[in-house]
Amino acid sequence: MSDGLTVPFALTAGLSGALHTNQLIIVSGLAEIAAGCISMGLGGFLAGESEVDHYNTALKQEYSEIETVPELELKEVEEALTAIGVEPDLSKAVALQISGNKDNWANFMMQMELKLEKPVENRARMSALTIAASYLVGGFIPLFPYFITNTNQSGLYLSCTVTIFALMVFGFLKSKFTGQNLITGTLKVASIGIIAAAAAFLLAKAVS
Amino acid sequence: MSDGLTVPFALTAGLSGALHTNQLIIVSGLAEIAAGCISMGLGGFLAGESEVDHYNTALKQEYSEIETVPELELKEVEEALTAIGVEPDLSKAVALQISGNKDNWANFMMQMELKLEKPVENRARMSALTIAASYLVGGFIPLFPYFITNTNQSGLYLSCTVTIFALMVFGFLKSKFTGQNLITGTLKVASIGIIAAAAAFLLAKAVS
Repeated sequence: MSDGLTVPFALTAGLSGALHTNQLIIVSGLAEIAAGCISMGLGGFLAGESEVDHYNTALKQEYSEIETVPELELKEVEEALTAIGVEPDLSKAVALQISGNKDNWANFMMQMELKLEKPVENRARMSALTIAASYLVGGFIPLFPYFITNTNQSGLYLSCTVTIFALMVFGFLKSKFTGQNLITGTLKVASIGIIAAAAAFLLAKAVS
Repeated sequence: MSDGLTVPFALTAGLSGALHTNQLIIVSGLAEIAAGCISMGLGGFLAGESEVDHYNTALKQEYSEIETVPELELKEVEEALTAIGVEPDLSKAVALQISGNKDNWANFMMQMELKLEKPVENRARMSALTIAASYLVGGFIPLFPYFITNTNQSGLYLSCTVTIFALMVFGFLKSKFTGQNLITGTLKVASIGIIAAAAAFLLAKAVS
């Protein structure tokens, strides 16, 4: 969402410093939103898929090690326990008990040795849809002012106003959700958008 | 890196279908790279910072619970152990031993109850620099052809050639690194770029 607000905002703001009709700014903005939406959405899908693959490969590996080198795996459970302050004798007893059930044993190794958490079901698809939809919604906020204004300058002013407002709302909600300081959280998200837009604007003006 | 290759590639390809001089394609491409680089780089910085914040807040909370409601926390250690197949008596003995050291106790809760891993030092700064640098390098690959060609069409052809090649190299290396199937991994990364560019091209052509 944050990239969806920021990148099309910065791009269209940048172009408004170099182009003199809203038409081309709109074409660029739409092309950017389509590109970002697909690239990040499908990229998120691949990342989610890799995560599931990685987890499954590691789990299979643990099960196979439990079959082929059980003494070694038992030793690893003991070591994971002594590492967190359990005395050797007790660690041995716990390891023996966990090893009574192969699923528990493999799960323990995944959590304590590899620190891997089971990815949630449909992770890849949910990631892809969330990212693509957020980018799409985010991207239209900075872009729509160029549709309803006649000059690049009035488009830029309106786009700055609505986008900075939207970035602040988003930053505020995000800070609230993640438990961060509301004021600094809000300002940080808005600043990124403003810095990115200013850089794109100055760069586009300089080279055109 | 993948977004840095794909988004500026798709945007410039899209614009090459709507604009007739390389000059404006280059201005848009540069503005997009600047915007994406800053938005994603600083966004990565904030994400890294949130992660560290989140970890520290949770750790502080665990230490405070250990002080204020130790019986409850002891019970939680026991439950985490019985959940992975350790019998109640043994779980109690282990919990008592772990609780002898507050650091071990808090660490155990962080790993087993909250499943939080300590973020590496300088995570936020490293994230920001890696993302920004990758986006910058990635972005110039699809853009430079428009600098060295005279027409939007020859720019587009050269950009497609070098970018699809770069996407395949990147997809191959990424698959190798993450242990995925090399052929499907390579094709997936390249496909995202091609789909995003085709969508941006068709959209830009349709609206201009």
